[in-house]
Amino acid sequence: MITSLRSPQIGRVRELLETHSPKRREELGEYVVEGMRAVDTALNASESAVLELFATSEQIDRYKDRDPTLVSDDVMKKMSGTVSPQGVLAVLSLPLRKISELVDKRRIVFLSSINDPGNLGTVIRNAHAFGFDAVVLSQGSVDPFSGKVVRASVGSITAPAIFNGYSFTQSFEVVRSSHKCFALDMNGEKIGSFVGFDKLLVVLGSEAHGLPDEISSVEGVTTIAIDMPGEAESLNVATAAAIAMYEISRS
Amino acid sequence: MITSLRSPQIGRVRELLETHSPKRREELGEYVVEGMRAVDTALNASESAVLELFATSEQIDRYKDRDPTLVSDDVMKKMSGTVSPQGVLAVLSLPLRKISELVDKRRIVFLSSINDPGNLGTVIRNAHAFGFDAVVLSQGSVDPFSGKVVRASVGSITAPAIFNGYSFTQSFEVVRSSHKCFALDMNGEKIGSFVGFDKLLVVLGSEAHGLPDEISSVEGVTTIAIDMPGEAESLNVATAAAIAMYEISRS
Repeated sequence: MITSLRSPQIGRVRELLETHSPKRREELGEYVVEGMRAVDTALNASESAVLELFATSEQIDRYKDRDPTLVSDDVMKKMSGTVSPQGVLAVLSLPLRKISELVDKRRIVFLSSINDPGNLGTVIRNAHAFGFDAVVLSQGSVDPFSGKVVRASVGSITAPAIFNGYSFTQSFEVVRSSHKCFALDMNGEKIGSFVGFDKLLVVLGSEAHGLPDEISSVEGVTTIAIDMPGEAESLNVATAAAIAMYEISRS
Repeated sequence: MITSLRSPQIGRVRELLETHSPKRREELGEYVVEGMRAVDTALNASESAVLELFATSEQIDRYKDRDPTLVSDDVMKKMSGTVSPQGVLAVLSLPLRKISELVDKRRIVFLSSINDPGNLGTVIRNAHAFGFDAVVLSQGSVDPFSGKVVRASVGSITAPAIFNGYSFTQSFEVVRSSHKCFALDMNGEKIGSFVGFDKLLVVLGSEAHGLPDEISSVEGVTTIAIDMPGEAESLNVATAAAIAMYEISRS
């Protein structure tokens, strides 16, 4: 059992949770998920990448087949940095996916320059809820494996495959002949029925700048709009993505 | 023109933006919205309650019919507390609504103990987008007129009528004979069609504790669930509210 508050494991976990530098996290090649829901989802993922599991005495039995490291409550508290940690925490290997793998995914959401960690975490959580198996992030997006995004995904970070740092053009190139591509745009046609499309790519622009022109004019991209009878000018990106994924999941 | 960084107006606006105490804000009887979109929505609201308008020289002409107070860029920066303020800011009188007025609203969303300012702001923004004219908050919810919620509502805080600090029972009592009441609950029937219901009350439980039992068992309340083909256990409250309001707005 780790009881020393000076254990190097604490420093390792804290750095992974706190660094704002995707580059530094890539160097380390690891990230951290906390809590039962997140850890269970990670352990059950088809490509589980759990490197090390830390649990307090309260949680250790639940994970006994997974060779967990027992830590004291104080060590867990210091590792997690939260006032009431959930008693279990996993270090996972950072997935680095080639964009060519995107073709094997059935339902994909692409996000342009998403920079709010809460919004990105919510999109990942909703992708999990609505059966999307891939999330692509353009370069310049917030780091999906940062502590804030992982927390906001409420256990879903390991569910969809995350493709980090690829442009729309790179992504579309891979799936254009296999997937139907929809892009959300306020000037598009009102959202209709998605029946008949099994493999789909849905593209969202950034909240600040909307959908880049070069996307809506690409041949093979259908622009669609979410119907808003009220007077607000727009939806936030997480809401727009949720409604699009919800509609598609019902088709 | 106000140029002094010691102007009492600065202190007044800062306190309104920063206080975390709803009680203190109620004593002051005012709150603040920032930016063109929020100020324009406030000025156009049917019950506009703009008490004072502050604008920089860049924005002053746009509001010249509204008797704005000209302030220097530095004063605006200090008032707003943001690095790049949008040049216009309004002090509004705090609406204190009696629950009996709820009967006049057509589409109402009720939130139990919502405590994340970003989520509440998003619900208010989406209420505006999907044509809901009232948002009711149970006691113990985050203050809807705090700076964080107002910012997250992206200009929509003055669009729906906010009823703050009323229980489900108080609200339902007022509208039970005029409105159809739906409550979101994971164990409810899959969301269906809302055609045929003009006046509606939609109830959301808290993210932490779900829908209180006493609500789902009330006669006249129909529980509904959002269909989630994926494996995530739940949606966040802002997403669930968005999808319910979206579905209803399409009926």
